[in-house]
Amino acid sequence: MRLKYGMVGGGAGSFIGGAHRRSINLDGEAVLVAGSFSRDYENTLATGRELGIAEDRLYKSYAGMAKAEAQREDGIDFVVVVTPNHTHYAICKAFLEAGIHVSCDKPLAVNTGQAFELERLAREKDLLFLVTYTYAGHVTAKYAADLIKSGQIGQVRTVMAEYPQGWLADVDSGGGKQGEWRRDPAQSGNTNCLGDLGTHVENIVATMTGLKIKRVLAKMDVVVPGRVLDDNDFVMVEYEGGATGLYWTSQIAIGHDNSLRVRVYGDEGTILWFQEEPEKITVIRKDGSLTEQHRGYPAITPGAAAYSRLPSGHPEGWFEAMANLYASFIKCVKAKKEGTFSRGMIDFPTVEDGAEGIRFVEACLESSRNGNVWVEY
Amino acid sequence: MRLKYGMVGGGAGSFIGGAHRRSINLDGEAVLVAGSFSRDYENTLATGRELGIAEDRLYKSYAGMAKAEAQREDGIDFVVVVTPNHTHYAICKAFLEAGIHVSCDKPLAVNTGQAFELERLAREKDLLFLVTYTYAGHVTAKYAADLIKSGQIGQVRTVMAEYPQGWLADVDSGGGKQGEWRRDPAQSGNTNCLGDLGTHVENIVATMTGLKIKRVLAKMDVVVPGRVLDDNDFVMVEYEGGATGLYWTSQIAIGHDNSLRVRVYGDEGTILWFQEEPEKITVIRKDGSLTEQHRGYPAITPGAAAYSRLPSGHPEGWFEAMANLYASFIKCVKAKKEGTFSRGMIDFPTVEDGAEGIRFVEACLESSRNGNVWVEY
Amino acid sequence: MRLKYGMVGGGAGSFIGGAHRRSINLDGEAVLVAGSFSRDYENTLATGRELGIAEDRLYKSYAGMAKAEAQREDGIDFVVVVTPNHTHYAICKAFLEAGIHVSCDKPLAVNTGQAFELERLAREKDLLFLVTYTYAGHVTAKYAADLIKSGQIGQVRTVMAEYPQGWLADVDSGGGKQGEWRRDPAQSGNTNCLGDLGTHVENIVATMTGLKIKRVLAKMDVVVPGRVLDDNDFVMVEYEGGATGLYWTSQIAIGHDNSLRVRVYGDEGTILWFQEEPEKITVIRKDGSLTEQHRGYPAITPGAAAYSRLPSGHPEGWFEAMANLYASFIKCVKAKKEGTFSRGMIDFPTVEDGAEGIRFVEACLESSRNGNVWVEY
Amino acid sequence: MRLKYGMVGGGAGSFIGGAHRRSINLDGEAVLVAGSFSRDYENTLATGRELGIAEDRLYKSYAGMAKAEAQREDGIDFVVVVTPNHTHYAICKAFLEAGIHVSCDKPLAVNTGQAFELERLAREKDLLFLVTYTYAGHVTAKYAADLIKSGQIGQVRTVMAEYPQGWLADVDSGGGKQGEWRRDPAQSGNTNCLGDLGTHVENIVATMTGLKIKRVLAKMDVVVPGRVLDDNDFVMVEYEGGATGLYWTSQIAIGHDNSLRVRVYGDEGTILWFQEEPEKITVIRKDGSLTEQHRGYPAITPGAAAYSRLPSGHPEGWFEAMANLYASFIKCVKAKKEGTFSRGMIDFPTVEDGAEGIRFVEACLESSRNGNVWVEY
Repeated sequence: MRLKYGMVGGGAGSFIGGAHRRSINLDGEAVLVAGSFSRDYENTLATGRELGIAEDRLYKSYAGMAKAEAQREDGIDFVVVVTPNHTHYAICKAFLEAGIHVSCDKPLAVNTGQAFELERLAREKDLLFLVTYTYAGHVTAKYAADLIKSGQIGQVRTVMAEYPQGWLADVDSGGGKQGEWRRDPAQSGNTNCLGDLGTHVENIVATMTGLKIKRVLAKMDVVVPGRVLDDNDFVMVEYEGGATGLYWTSQIAIGHDNSLRVRVYGDEGTILWFQEEPEKITVIRKDGSLTEQHRGYPAITPGAAAYSRLPSGHPEGWFEAMANLYASFIKCVKAKKEGTFSRGMIDFPTVEDGAEGIRFVEACLESSRNGNVWVEY
Repeated sequence: MRLKYGMVGGGAGSFIGGAHRRSINLDGEAVLVAGSFSRDYENTLATGRELGIAEDRLYKSYAGMAKAEAQREDGIDFVVVVTPNHTHYAICKAFLEAGIHVSCDKPLAVNTGQAFELERLAREKDLLFLVTYTYAGHVTAKYAADLIKSGQIGQVRTVMAEYPQGWLADVDSGGGKQGEWRRDPAQSGNTNCLGDLGTHVENIVATMTGLKIKRVLAKMDVVVPGRVLDDNDFVMVEYEGGATGLYWTSQIAIGHDNSLRVRVYGDEGTILWFQEEPEKITVIRKDGSLTEQHRGYPAITPGAAAYSRLPSGHPEGWFEAMANLYASFIKCVKAKKEGTFSRGMIDFPTVEDGAEGIRFVEACLESSRNGNVWVEY
Repeated sequence: MRLKYGMVGGGAGSFIGGAHRRSINLDGEAVLVAGSFSRDYENTLATGRELGIAEDRLYKSYAGMAKAEAQREDGIDFVVVVTPNHTHYAICKAFLEAGIHVSCDKPLAVNTGQAFELERLAREKDLLFLVTYTYAGHVTAKYAADLIKSGQIGQVRTVMAEYPQGWLADVDSGGGKQGEWRRDPAQSGNTNCLGDLGTHVENIVATMTGLKIKRVLAKMDVVVPGRVLDDNDFVMVEYEGGATGLYWTSQIAIGHDNSLRVRVYGDEGTILWFQEEPEKITVIRKDGSLTEQHRGYPAITPGAAAYSRLPSGHPEGWFEAMANLYASFIKCVKAKKEGTFSRGMIDFPTVEDGAEGIRFVEACLESSRNGNVWVEY
Repeated sequence: MRLKYGMVGGGAGSFIGGAHRRSINLDGEAVLVAGSFSRDYENTLATGRELGIAEDRLYKSYAGMAKAEAQREDGIDFVVVVTPNHTHYAICKAFLEAGIHVSCDKPLAVNTGQAFELERLAREKDLLFLVTYTYAGHVTAKYAADLIKSGQIGQVRTVMAEYPQGWLADVDSGGGKQGEWRRDPAQSGNTNCLGDLGTHVENIVATMTGLKIKRVLAKMDVVVPGRVLDDNDFVMVEYEGGATGLYWTSQIAIGHDNSLRVRVYGDEGTILWFQEEPEKITVIRKDGSLTEQHRGYPAITPGAAAYSRLPSGHPEGWFEAMANLYASFIKCVKAKKEGTFSRGMIDFPTVEDGAEGIRFVEACLESSRNGNVWVEY
C-alpha cells in the first residue's frame, strides 16, 4: 500500500520542496497527489502539472487544501509543509485541525507560543507530526544514539558541537532567494544563524545523547557589517545531571560547506560524528583505541542498520537521511491507518523535538540580549 | 513528459534491481510500467504488485515482454536489464531487435563476440544503449574528465587505479546469492574479480583520461583456497601515446568496502579521486599546491555541475551517480522521441564502452593464462 | 662558535629536561656544561655524570649555580629552567640578577605579579628571555602568522582554538609524577588544565593572529570527581578590534592525545592548523578553494621555511619545533655576545609573551569564580 | 659511556651527512671525533672545524682515516659512510678490513658482487654493519612487524607497496647536487628510481612481513624525455609461500613528497602504514573493525614502544626513525666492547638486508631489460 501525500510550498524556485519529494521518491512508499505549491496560483499549477498531479487537487490556498483533502474519500494521508519559517505555524495548525498528519520543515515555528500550541494540537488530535531535522536520519547518528543509550561511552561529561557554514561570509553573498529570507527578521524571527543551524545542533545533540538542557549562556554576534541578524554564535550549555556543552554555529566561516560536527565525551569513551562524512563514525575507548565504523558494518546496531539501502562503500547521503525520517513516519502513518500503531514505533523527530529547538533559540536570544548571562530553561 | 520503462530481472532477492529503480525514482522522469522480474513468474507477479504495475504488463519471459511492449501503443520507452551477466546478451538482443532502447548493468556480456554483436545491433537499429558503469556518473568523475581533457594536468604519464573489496576474503564468506553467482564460472564467465571490478576500473580510467589501451600484462590470482575464479588481480597497462597504468582489483582485501580509487599523473599536475568520498576531488599543480574541490564549488565545470542536486556539504552518493547516468540517458531517449537528439548529447557509458570492458577482460585472461605476458589489443 | 648552557631541573625522573636537551642537541649549537638538576644533589651528580659534565659545575642549588657561573670566565651563556611551575619565578630571577640569559618552560609563573617582575627585570638587565611555548616553533605556525600578517585571509573575524587531551580522564589516571604535580594547587597555582593547556592556546593564537585580548568569559570545570583543580574549560574571548574567539581546553577528552588545533576565520579566507599534523596547513580562499600546503613547499614564506631541516615528506615534529625556538634564541644570544643583536632578530616567545599567558589565566579564574561573567583585561 | 665515531662524506653541500649527525645527536650516545668529509680536503677541514673536531683527525682520504683510526688507542668505535652510492663498497671495505664497525647509507652498493663481498667481510671480521634504511626505524613500522610476526593478521596474502615522489617530474627539475648524481649512471648504477626508492620498498616490506621474494616481474620506465635512468617503475612480486606483491616507485608523481606506503593484507586482517604519517598505524580485523593506533598507545608492543621519546600527540618523525636505527646499533657496539653482545640484540637493518636490496634491483633490471618477464631469485 502506497500512501498519498500533499505538499504546501515547494513550487518553482524552491529548493527544499524538491528535496523532500526526492527523498520520499527514493523508497516510493508515498505518492504526491495534491499541492498548494505557492501563494502564486500560476506557480502551483505549473509545478503540479510538471509533477503529474490532477488539476482538481492543485489548490489556491493551504486552508482550502486542508479542508478539501479532509473531505475527500481518497484524501491525502499526510501533508508536507515546506514554506518559510514564519508561516509554518498557521499551515500546520490548519492541517492538524483538519485531522491530517503533518511533516514540517524545521525550525518548527518562530516562537515557543506557536510551537507549544502545535504540540498541544497534535496530541489532542492524536496525529503524527514529523519535524524534518534531516541529520537525525543518518544511520550513523542513530547508531551513536544507540551506543550512548546503552552506556558504551559511560556517562556523558561534555559535548562539543558545531555547525559552521561559509556561504554568507559576504554582505551580499548569498544564495539568492534562500539567502534573502534567512537574513530577513520578518520571515526568520529574531535570529538567522542560530535559528537555522543552532536548532539542528540542539536536536542532534539531544537525539544522540538524550541530555536535557538546564541552562544556556549565549553570545550571538552579527559579524558582517550591515547585517541585522546573527551570523556567528557561541553557546555554553549545562545539562541536567552535570554534563556541559559548547556549541558554535556560523555562516561566515569560509571553507565550511555544511559542517555539522558532534563530539561526545563520556567517562568511558568518546564518539566523533561529522555530517559531511555520514558514512562513518569514530568510537574511542578509554584505552585509547580508536575504531572507525562504517554504515553497513556488523557492529552497527540493528535498529540503525535497518535504514541502510546500500552496502557500505556505496555512499549514502543527505537524501537518504531525509528518506529515513520519512521511512519511519510513513510506517507509522500506515500503522495508524491499520490500527497497529504504538508510540514505540516512532523513530523520527516529533513536534515535541521541534518545540525544544524553539525553546533553545528563545533562551539563547534572552541570554545574548542580556549580556551573555545564564538563562535557566 | 515522463517516460515509461520496463525491467528484466530485479525481483524479490535482487539487490541491483531495486537500486536501479530507486535511482530512476530520484528524479522521477521515468515510471516503471512493465516487468519480467524473475524466471519464476510468481516472483514477477509479487514484485509487480508491490510496485503497483498493471498485471497485463507482468511477463513470463523477457522475449514475450519485448514483443508485447513493442506492439503496444503505450509501450515502454526503454528497458532496464539487471539479470546475471551471462544472460545480458540474449535479453539485450531481444529488446534491441524489438526496437526498444536498452539500459544494461555491467559487465555488458561474457565475451567480446556477444559485446560486439550488441554494439553492431544498437548501431544498426539506431537505438540508445546505456551500460550502467555507476561511478562514471559522479559529478567529480565528470569534472576530472573535463579537467584532463582541457589539459589542466598536461599530458597524462601514468595512472594508478585500484578497486579493492574485502567481502569475499573467506572461502565461505559471501553475501549469499550475490556472492554465489559471482564465484560461479557458468554465470560469471571465466573471471570473477576482474570481470566485476576490473571492468569498472577500465571504464573509469577511460572515461576520465580518454586513454586507449594498447596492451596489457595481467596476473589474475585465486587466493582463497577452494575457489575457482580469480579474486585478486594485478594488471600493467600501456596506452597509445606512451602513458602507462597499474591496476589492482581484489575481493580479499580486508578493510576495503568498495574502494575504487583513481590517481592520474600528468606532466603538469595530478588528480586524485576516490569513489567512497565522491563529494571531493584533489587537484595538484606542478608547484606542489594541493587543492581539494567539492561538488558544488564554483570551480566545478558547468557540464559536471549540472548533475548536482544539492549544495556541497549535503552529501550525494551512489544513487545520485546512478541517477546521473539515467538523467542523461532519459534526456536522450526523450530527444529521440521528439526528434531533437544528436550524438553530442550522450553523457553516459554506451554499448561501445561496455564492449571495451569485455575486451579488457579477455586480453587480461589471455595474458594471465599465458604466464603474465603482454597481450596486444 | 658553540654556546655553553646550564640547566636547572631535568634530573632523573624528569621528562621535560631531556626534551629540552634533545632539542638543543639537534642542531648542536650549544653544549650543556653545568647543572643543578634536582634539589636532591645525588640526583644532580648522577645526571651530570651521565651527561658528561665536569663535577665542579654540578651545583647543589640554583642560587649557587647562578652566582658561580656568572663569575667564571667560561661561564654559561644561558640557563634552561625546567622545574615545576611554582619555582620558575625565583630561579629565573636569580639568573637574571646574575646577568645570565634565560630560557624557561611555560607557564612562566603562577601569578602576574611574578610574571611582570620577571618582565621588568629582563628589560632592566637587557637580557634575552625565552619562554618555551613549543608549538610556536612549528614552521607551519610561523607560516600561518606570516599569512595573516600579510593580509592573506583579510581581517580576522573569529578564532576557534582547542587543546583537548584525554590522559587525565580518570581520577587516578595519570602519568605518575607528571600527572601529580599538575593536579596539586601548591605546585600548579589555582589551575591545572587552563594553566597548562590554556596558556598554549592563548600563546599560539596571539602568535598567529597578533590579536590582543580585550575581555574573557570563562567556565572552568572540575569534571572528575575528587579532583580539586579544573580539568575542562570553556572560554569566550573578545579581542580588540571586534574579533571573537572560543577556546576549549580539556584533560578528560578521551581519544585526544595532544590535540591543539587552531582555526582562524577572516573576511577573505580561513587557516586551519593542527599541532598533531604540523607538517601541513590548510588555507581556504573566499572562492572555496582549499589548499593544503606542506612544510618545505615553495609557497612557505622564507622566514618560516628557514627553520626546515628536512625536505617535505620527511616528517619533522615536536623536537624540531622546540629546536626552532632555541635556534632563534641561540642566534640572538650569539649576536648579543658579538654585538650584532637587534630586537628584530627575535623570533621566539619572550618573557612578555609568557606574562600574557599568566594574565589570561588570572582573568579566566576571576571570570569563572564570579559565575562566568566578562572580565576586562 | 659515549662512543666515538667518524664520518666519510657529509661535507659542506651534503644533505645526508648532517641528517645522520643530527639523528645521532638526538640521543647523544656517540660523539663525532674524526672525519674525511669530502674528496676536497679544504671542505673536510672547514666542515671539521665547524663541528669542533681536532685537526689531526681530519683526513685527506678514507683509506688513511681507516688506517690511522684503527691504530689510535682512542680511535673511533664506528664509521658512518654517507658518500655517493658507487663509492660505498670501497669505503666500507676499507673500514671493515681495519676492524671498525660500519654504518652505511643505502643502497649498500651498486651490484650484488660488491654487496655479497661486504656481507662476507663483515661476517669474517665479526663486525656490526648498519645499513640506514631509515623507515625501518619508525616505532609504528616495528609495531607492524611485531603484529604480523605474532599472527595478528593471519597469513599474509598480498602486499601493496608504493613510494612515489614528484620532485623529478621535470627534465630539469631537481634538487641541485642531489638530483644530479641520482640521474647519472656512473654514480647511481643502472637505475635511479628503483635503486633509490625501490630498495626502501623492498626493505620495509621484508622488515614488516618477513616474506622472502621468489621472483619478480618489473617494468622500469623512463618517463621524462631526455633522461637516461628509470623514473617510474612497476614490479609484480611472488614471495615464497604463495603471497604476492605489487610495488610502485616514481619520481614523477606530482603531488607526492615522500609517500612510502605499505598495505599488508592477511587472511585475518590488514595493516595500513604510511611513512608521511608515521605516528599512526591502522589495523583492520576480519569483522571490518578499523582501529587506528598511535605511537605511545598501550597497544604498541613493548619492543617497539621502547623507541618512543615523547608521548603520543607530540609528533616524532624522520630524525627519530634514523635515531632509532642508531640507538640499536650503538647499543650493540657498546655491548661488543663490553663483551655482552648477542645477535638477538640486533634491531636494525644489517649488511645482509642491504644486500637483499641490491639483489632486488638486479633482478628487476634483468626483468625489465628482457621485456618484463619473471626473473627467479
